[in-house]
Amino acid sequence: MLVVMKSTATSEMVEAVVKAVSEMGLKAHPIPGANRTAIGITGNKAQVNDTALRALVGVEDLVHVTAPYKLVGRDFHPQDSVVDVDGVTIGGKEVVLMGGPCSVEPLEVTLEIARAVKKAGGKVFRGGAFKPRTSPYSFQGLGEDGLKILAQVRQETGLKIITEAIDPENLRLVAKYTDIIQIGARNMQNFSLLKAAGKSGKTVMIKRGMSSTVDELLMAAEYVMAEGNNRVILCERGVRTFAAHTRNTLDLSAIPYVKARSHLPIVADPSHGTGVREMVAALSRASVAVGADGLIIETHTSPDKALSDAFQTVTIGTFETIAKETEDIAQILGRSF
Amino acid sequence: MLVVMKSTATSEMVEAVVKAVSEMGLKAHPIPGANRTAIGITGNKAQVNDTALRALVGVEDLVHVTAPYKLVGRDFHPQDSVVDVDGVTIGGKEVVLMGGPCSVEPLEVTLEIARAVKKAGGKVFRGGAFKPRTSPYSFQGLGEDGLKILAQVRQETGLKIITEAIDPENLRLVAKYTDIIQIGARNMQNFSLLKAAGKSGKTVMIKRGMSSTVDELLMAAEYVMAEGNNRVILCERGVRTFAAHTRNTLDLSAIPYVKARSHLPIVADPSHGTGVREMVAALSRASVAVGADGLIIETHTSPDKALSDAFQTVTIGTFETIAKETEDIAQILGRSF
Amino acid sequence: MLVVMKSTATSEMVEAVVKAVSEMGLKAHPIPGANRTAIGITGNKAQVNDTALRALVGVEDLVHVTAPYKLVGRDFHPQDSVVDVDGVTIGGKEVVLMGGPCSVEPLEVTLEIARAVKKAGGKVFRGGAFKPRTSPYSFQGLGEDGLKILAQVRQETGLKIITEAIDPENLRLVAKYTDIIQIGARNMQNFSLLKAAGKSGKTVMIKRGMSSTVDELLMAAEYVMAEGNNRVILCERGVRTFAAHTRNTLDLSAIPYVKARSHLPIVADPSHGTGVREMVAALSRASVAVGADGLIIETHTSPDKALSDAFQTVTIGTFETIAKETEDIAQILGRSF
Amino acid sequence: MLVVMKSTATSEMVEAVVKAVSEMGLKAHPIPGANRTAIGITGNKAQVNDTALRALVGVEDLVHVTAPYKLVGRDFHPQDSVVDVDGVTIGGKEVVLMGGPCSVEPLEVTLEIARAVKKAGGKVFRGGAFKPRTSPYSFQGLGEDGLKILAQVRQETGLKIITEAIDPENLRLVAKYTDIIQIGARNMQNFSLLKAAGKSGKTVMIKRGMSSTVDELLMAAEYVMAEGNNRVILCERGVRTFAAHTRNTLDLSAIPYVKARSHLPIVADPSHGTGVREMVAALSRASVAVGADGLIIETHTSPDKALSDAFQTVTIGTFETIAKETEDIAQILGRSF
Repeated sequence: MLVVMKSTATSEMVEAVVKAVSEMGLKAHPIPGANRTAIGITGNKAQVNDTALRALVGVEDLVHVTAPYKLVGRDFHPQDSVVDVDGVTIGGKEVVLMGGPCSVEPLEVTLEIARAVKKAGGKVFRGGAFKPRTSPYSFQGLGEDGLKILAQVRQETGLKIITEAIDPENLRLVAKYTDIIQIGARNMQNFSLLKAAGKSGKTVMIKRGMSSTVDELLMAAEYVMAEGNNRVILCERGVRTFAAHTRNTLDLSAIPYVKARSHLPIVADPSHGTGVREMVAALSRASVAVGADGLIIETHTSPDKALSDAFQTVTIGTFETIAKETEDIAQILGRSF
Repeated sequence: MLVVMKSTATSEMVEAVVKAVSEMGLKAHPIPGANRTAIGITGNKAQVNDTALRALVGVEDLVHVTAPYKLVGRDFHPQDSVVDVDGVTIGGKEVVLMGGPCSVEPLEVTLEIARAVKKAGGKVFRGGAFKPRTSPYSFQGLGEDGLKILAQVRQETGLKIITEAIDPENLRLVAKYTDIIQIGARNMQNFSLLKAAGKSGKTVMIKRGMSSTVDELLMAAEYVMAEGNNRVILCERGVRTFAAHTRNTLDLSAIPYVKARSHLPIVADPSHGTGVREMVAALSRASVAVGADGLIIETHTSPDKALSDAFQTVTIGTFETIAKETEDIAQILGRSF
Repeated sequence: MLVVMKSTATSEMVEAVVKAVSEMGLKAHPIPGANRTAIGITGNKAQVNDTALRALVGVEDLVHVTAPYKLVGRDFHPQDSVVDVDGVTIGGKEVVLMGGPCSVEPLEVTLEIARAVKKAGGKVFRGGAFKPRTSPYSFQGLGEDGLKILAQVRQETGLKIITEAIDPENLRLVAKYTDIIQIGARNMQNFSLLKAAGKSGKTVMIKRGMSSTVDELLMAAEYVMAEGNNRVILCERGVRTFAAHTRNTLDLSAIPYVKARSHLPIVADPSHGTGVREMVAALSRASVAVGADGLIIETHTSPDKALSDAFQTVTIGTFETIAKETEDIAQILGRSF
Repeated sequence: MLVVMKSTATSEMVEAVVKAVSEMGLKAHPIPGANRTAIGITGNKAQVNDTALRALVGVEDLVHVTAPYKLVGRDFHPQDSVVDVDGVTIGGKEVVLMGGPCSVEPLEVTLEIARAVKKAGGKVFRGGAFKPRTSPYSFQGLGEDGLKILAQVRQETGLKIITEAIDPENLRLVAKYTDIIQIGARNMQNFSLLKAAGKSGKTVMIKRGMSSTVDELLMAAEYVMAEGNNRVILCERGVRTFAAHTRNTLDLSAIPYVKARSHLPIVADPSHGTGVREMVAALSRASVAVGADGLIIETHTSPDKALSDAFQTVTIGTFETIAKETEDIAQILGRSF
């Protein structure tokens, strides 16, 4: 860490900072400059608790030069993590396609969608049984009945299941049925939920919060891993910006950024990332081209009849096109499908 | 609601929309235009479920013209709500000052701060016992011990207590000790937590999420009120933008916006709203001038020794200045302190 | 357009709006609703001047349902525009690669880069002679000497030239030397400059402003086309958001959005779109995969010695890799290179 | 400046950076750390040109610790600048009220507004003769006729005049008529225009760009001052964010931030800062409370008939209320009106 002193700081103020740093058991390295002095700090194992330093007289700013994450970082685990979900591997050579409705539909419809997803090349089936909704009056999902439908989909199709958990108690229920627990964007910093997900030992997919930095997403993963659970997948699903032509702005640069810093797999969600059905195929291609380890796409045999999010849900036909186009792109990148 | 048809939509497509609307038990009013047709929808009691409509061939866009909130809106409750917390009224003529440390400190320190807050004119004491932190390795609060310290503060000073709950189970514990349950910015759309807060019957203060619209904040309050709990206070605490000179951008326009649409009280948090100690007094003045019903300010007798957030915590001296300056401004607006 | 009345509006207020609309020579269509009345307006050729209406008593909101652009829209020109720059076509089947340094370098270096760009498959050479810089003390470009170097590059390599103009007077000078005039992001709403670009008759590439909506970008193009100049290319180069891991957030959804609404070609700039050298190749692949008509990439034989923007400038080796990878992706989309 | 090395950097790489720094005539101070080395740089007079350094092998990041501005900074001019516009002082004890229509109206209407502005306590009259508009088909202002009307307003009322210039040539015309030249938000980084404003020697008010940081605003002022013109006023007018309830988000924290770093006066524009007529009075109070040196407010005797921006233009009655309320607040802060 670096302490930047004010240009008006006296040498006594600089001395006081050096002393405070020493008292923390760390080493201070003053660097006198033309206008002001900076003081480097070394010897810290974790990030320096900067509370005391920031408050000292004459201090202008503190600059952290070490990344705050540990277990999720490549420094501690240089190779890519490959998460094996009962035979489906995420983060390896394969690009994994996940599809299904926004909300779990009644059994017959859900099964019909699942069979089509599988036929098109999908490996994981998505569907929300518990839906976090802005309005208390909106449809909130089928609940445990939805989980049972998902379990039946797995049994009949062999697809793996991903579905969202919305609070720690609810997570224990969800974990009984699903292969992958989804932590939704609104809950990315619901730390109780992240800890519960860590303790569950299940594979966890964490979606980036709609105004979270990528570093905060990595720190959310650190919460899960700090509980001893290494089975973590990240998901870029768009962030909130001033742009008005899409529901969110899909930030594809997050993917190479994560790849450079973390060993964890990361998939893209172009459905929420655009919120516009007509754009999903184009952004799916872009996501695979940029290096995503998978795609999660809202899909329905009759999107117009979907229980929620119809406007961003694609048809099976579009899903098949996406599968075909992204497979070709994956091959260019030396990946399979 | 209004359905906007594409300029290429045929009259058959328009007819199909009219028919679909009728089948929903609503009334359709086509408005043919020079370039395209729009179709007004009336007769709906709640917001129209637009899933089916958006998906019809020829539909360009749907425009909702009714606000989605009900219980929080002035249409249903024209007068200002005044929340009475055991004698301290929020939302009435009085501007209420809340102060205290970011995290609850050890008893002696906490009491010392509380006495100073009270002497300066504060009515409510703040302090986090459970802290949601970006890093799992950061200090997470004193837990139930912190709650006990807060209860003792109330007993010795008569100040009301506000402290944060972070999950539904935790909320039950927090509710046993506190006067006001705080729902933090990261949990504004943690709907399980909001429902639990509603069921508790306690006064609840909801902080605006860091990338939430004001309408989403109002919908979060709707979740609490839908459980039969009318004791809700809102809090503007800054939003995330590209601006780099503050930790968040305090969006003071949220206050007159809320006042125009909702009967609920709203306070401002200039500590998180700026993240910079030196700016807190200036933004406190602005908050009261814009019409806030109160201020919540991180305060410490020795900010430099605070357990967290030292860089945005003001001294008791600054807190007293804020009290004095904002009281004068409150009087100009015909309010007392 | 639709006028939404307040729920408290009386029938007299509704009548007043209907009357005002009639006096504008337009037709009003009242749609009474359960809670409030909306009034559709038809008969307008351009967007309704809503000043008078918005101010009438009882009016809650105005909703425009017609896009504000005309010449840039597909309604008026359904087929894709293909801009032919002296044999290099942009917006057709071909994906066009543009490369070169941020600032024009001395002649020998510039020529060396240009030959490498051409060899790798580039068709257009970029380089700034006039640089808009945040600080008046930063290097501002070689000026007319830079333009002369660019002209020599064209003569010796056959590459087309693109370079930025920064004010109307300067544009007249730039137009004498270049094939394509670039309007930079900071000048996207410099309407005097856009008009001058329109009058020049030269091909114009307009970069999206760093906080401009895509509709505003299209309106900037409308300024150029309104002067009778149809030779317009758009460019997505990233927008400003809270995200901290990149200099800008490349908003690739802008590309399918523009393609759906406008006939104009659009290229992507992954150099400014990320600001990070290591991410340029990945986002280049994504840009072509999403449907961009070309790429403009900061390239240098020795990026570390570049006169500006070194941290986002790629080597010739990376440029060649990008050319190869994006050509493969272009072919999947049925495009050539 | 500080160079942060990668954790994998070898001592040879560190040596290479030290050598490069020395070759720039500067001094390098390596600070070896537990995980990585940082290298402090001192001796630089201006900001270090970091191009060469950033590109060296093993360099992770560069951190600038010196502010990039010089003439606008308090380091070089500790006292507040007071700009005297022919007897009206901005930046001193007085809070200056500026009012008038968005666009200059016909003479009689303009004069009527001006007299009312003066009577309410206004000192400066605003009105656009040249209007930068998103659409080429929108009303673009009265042009030089508008400037002549403004000159007549000054003659008849004694009010000072502020009006916008939109390109360097246009600025020469505007400068002949006006007391203060306004540089609009869209042109904040139109550096040709800023230089022309600097050369004019006239008082210049620079509005913050809608996605500009406050530091970029200060750098825009540096452009004007670098031409030898110290007569600069800044203006906070709101920035673009995801928030939907206002046209822009008025960032009042910019005002104490500027005050701490720069000697230049700064005023607030709550009309553009909200875009909503009903919010202007509340945000005017907040602006003066936070420390603004003045307010610029769109005002009209009949806002509903204004040539542009009617929805954010207040009546004379509201303008008078604002004058009264903000005068009271100014007095609390020890300022006059």
